[in-house]
Amino acid sequence: MKQIRLNAFVMNSVTHSYQGLWCHPRDHSLDYKDLRYWMEFAKLLEKGKFDGIFLADSLGVHDVYGGSAEAALHGAVMIPKNDPSLLVPAMATVTTHLGFGITFSVLDEPPYAFARKISTLDHLTSGRVGWNIVTGYLESGAKARGDVQLTSHDERYVIAEEYMDVVYRLWESSWEDSAVRRDRENCIYTDPSKVHRIRHDGQYFKVDAVHMCEPSPQRTPVLYQAGASAKGMEFGAKHAECVFVSGPQPSNVGRRVKKIREEAMKHGRDPYDIQALLSLTVITAPTDAEAQRKHQEYSRYIDRTGSLVRLSGFIGTDLSTLRLDDPIKGLPDNGGIQSILENLTAARPDKAWTVSDVANSLNPDGVHPLLIGSPQTVVDGLQRWVEEADVDGFNLGVTVKPESMSDFVELVVPELQRRGLYKTEYGQGTLREKLFAKGAKTAATHPSAQYRRP
Amino acid sequence: MKQIRLNAFVMNSVTHSYQGLWCHPRDHSLDYKDLRYWMEFAKLLEKGKFDGIFLADSLGVHDVYGGSAEAALHGAVMIPKNDPSLLVPAMATVTTHLGFGITFSVLDEPPYAFARKISTLDHLTSGRVGWNIVTGYLESGAKARGDVQLTSHDERYVIAEEYMDVVYRLWESSWEDSAVRRDRENCIYTDPSKVHRIRHDGQYFKVDAVHMCEPSPQRTPVLYQAGASAKGMEFGAKHAECVFVSGPQPSNVGRRVKKIREEAMKHGRDPYDIQALLSLTVITAPTDAEAQRKHQEYSRYIDRTGSLVRLSGFIGTDLSTLRLDDPIKGLPDNGGIQSILENLTAARPDKAWTVSDVANSLNPDGVHPLLIGSPQTVVDGLQRWVEEADVDGFNLGVTVKPESMSDFVELVVPELQRRGLYKTEYGQGTLREKLFAKGAKTAATHPSAQYRRP
Repeated sequence: MKQIRLNAFVMNSVTHSYQGLWCHPRDHSLDYKDLRYWMEFAKLLEKGKFDGIFLADSLGVHDVYGGSAEAALHGAVMIPKNDPSLLVPAMATVTTHLGFGITFSVLDEPPYAFARKISTLDHLTSGRVGWNIVTGYLESGAKARGDVQLTSHDERYVIAEEYMDVVYRLWESSWEDSAVRRDRENCIYTDPSKVHRIRHDGQYFKVDAVHMCEPSPQRTPVLYQAGASAKGMEFGAKHAECVFVSGPQPSNVGRRVKKIREEAMKHGRDPYDIQALLSLTVITAPTDAEAQRKHQEYSRYIDRTGSLVRLSGFIGTDLSTLRLDDPIKGLPDNGGIQSILENLTAARPDKAWTVSDVANSLNPDGVHPLLIGSPQTVVDGLQRWVEEADVDGFNLGVTVKPESMSDFVELVVPELQRRGLYKTEYGQGTLREKLFAKGAKTAATHPSAQYRRP
Repeated sequence: MKQIRLNAFVMNSVTHSYQGLWCHPRDHSLDYKDLRYWMEFAKLLEKGKFDGIFLADSLGVHDVYGGSAEAALHGAVMIPKNDPSLLVPAMATVTTHLGFGITFSVLDEPPYAFARKISTLDHLTSGRVGWNIVTGYLESGAKARGDVQLTSHDERYVIAEEYMDVVYRLWESSWEDSAVRRDRENCIYTDPSKVHRIRHDGQYFKVDAVHMCEPSPQRTPVLYQAGASAKGMEFGAKHAECVFVSGPQPSNVGRRVKKIREEAMKHGRDPYDIQALLSLTVITAPTDAEAQRKHQEYSRYIDRTGSLVRLSGFIGTDLSTLRLDDPIKGLPDNGGIQSILENLTAARPDKAWTVSDVANSLNPDGVHPLLIGSPQTVVDGLQRWVEEADVDGFNLGVTVKPESMSDFVELVVPELQRRGLYKTEYGQGTLREKLFAKGAKTAATHPSAQYRRP
């Protein structure tokens, strides 16, 4: 039986996927600025043998709803939002195995300094770092960077391709494996003949330098990607080692997973060198009835305006101009995250979705699958996803923090283990070795490998 | 009696000020990639009631010596060099009071993302963050960034002025003090009417955005600066709250400190709103004779080529083309760090300095003052500096790591305390409150304060 992979899906902010739950009396979201909160959370995940914690991020604010940042600020809809990378070193001090997937946009940081940041994280965590490659989707982010407007969707992927080329070369080909001698007797740290200057003079980036860091355990971090557009899936099929997929039904998600694996094969890759992780949320309790009651209780705290603020930013369309009973179908695609509207209508094609329906993001019919029930019911659901959609695991949303994750670890993990669907001990080595058991470096068929020196 | 301030002066790399000492059998520099090493070091400093740990940094390699990076790589002369900011969260988890001064160049990172990084660090450390503002001095760093050549010295300060303007506005005026409500009952996190968009359209930077972070304890971090050129000192007198000074004799350092305080007054600032920290290294043991023997033992490990590699990079002149007995005086100023050659000859104006003399960076006559002796002798020396040069404290170099710092904490700190020159307990509050005891925010006369909302 395929071993299910688990990530926790979070953000360095008050809210992330579920708006309003920070107001639940048992919720600890207000502690997001406290390292102890994150360290305890990381320990909880490691107790549950999670593969990783995945930190979403974007520079910019969801100011599409109502044409201003007002509603986002009011409900703390992903603002304030702090830098995710700075949580990792603290969480690394109290864990040994947990992986850290961090989101960075290729538009926000020049590649040379970024490559150093990632290598540093990979060193400090002994090879537990992953990078979720994004290209930004917010106009507000573009303006924060000083751009007049957001670069077009397709051009962003052209930029990303060039960016990958630069960072692969810095990570893989600047320092040979045997470059570092650490020879104290003869006072030779590095053999300079085995360190190479990277020269790149491209359309968007220019670098002429030796990488600042000695080779880290994984060199190239484990690469995550979530693009659902044609360009995005093409990019993911080439570069990603884990893809985040979303969708309401195994049938449509399964089609997407199948397509990614097929595309990967076109790039000469093993289709299972890409693991597909489905965004999904679980609300569990010892019995189905208790879980349903917990769902109802959580749902009372959902901030419906906040949910529309979040969605408006993602799709690039101001939902405040619509009435609550207006249909969702037929909304224009304004260059935001394109799969979201698709998912909404695919969930239940028979249903006429309205703005009001999507405002409730703890709606079991909504954009992300929601499993509510006893450990048995939840594991039945997870197993069905794995079997029907060929996903490798789940990117688990967090509702009431950390209670909902604690429930999962206490109740669902033992049931997964009992059925042989989930590890009882961590594997050895780096994050990549734990996920693929094929070595610490990217596969020979991965585009980064072309730069590796013999 | 003025309370002496102490910082430890380090880098996220194998070597920093002293080349070759990583080969000393008791040295732990090879552990630089291990978070535990840094956490233990931070705990040692907090045990010694140090005000801060100061992390030097520069993107780029010292490739002036011999015209290539070869010698730097061979001796690990500040390469490899990892990202300093990522050490801070881990060190913060095991300390309560220690400050963290981190070096970032205004040329390496766009201001919007940088402002978020600093605010995040200030939140996560409860207000213990300082920023050492630098403008970069390495051609190799410019090429890594994709520039054809290093921007001229004076223009770098023009860029820095504009950069400060942008980040001050993000830190000080985007979110009002009372903007964040954290009102769970009514589910209002922020009062949007108290959050303001920053619009900057300048020569080098453009930003049109709300700051991503809610106000951190200090808002603007404690600002450090080390410029010794005319432009550098002018910039420091305006912006810095701590300046790093260096020089071999109290007389010449004293002149510089006096000048900075006078310049600060021209900007309407209290001359003692700037603390001057002298770069200085201590080698101590219970008796003078033992300290002298320790100095001799350490000196045997100095990598003389490595020292010239370091110096060549700083001054922008290739010292490999000179013979060891060639004079240092009269070397051209190639746009590197201008004060270094000055200091060398000022140390002992009667002496004809040669390349060989400066190759030994543990030379007591050298560019940084070196105090060798018993705790009494060392404190006599420190006290003389404070009295004669009006410095506020010291940025202590580390020789054998962490032994030399452990010696200082065990031996010198108690003697400083016995004489009433040094705190026996930490002050309360943020780093800025501990240093100046005038509140968590920058002084009203500081240029950042103009952006503060009433």
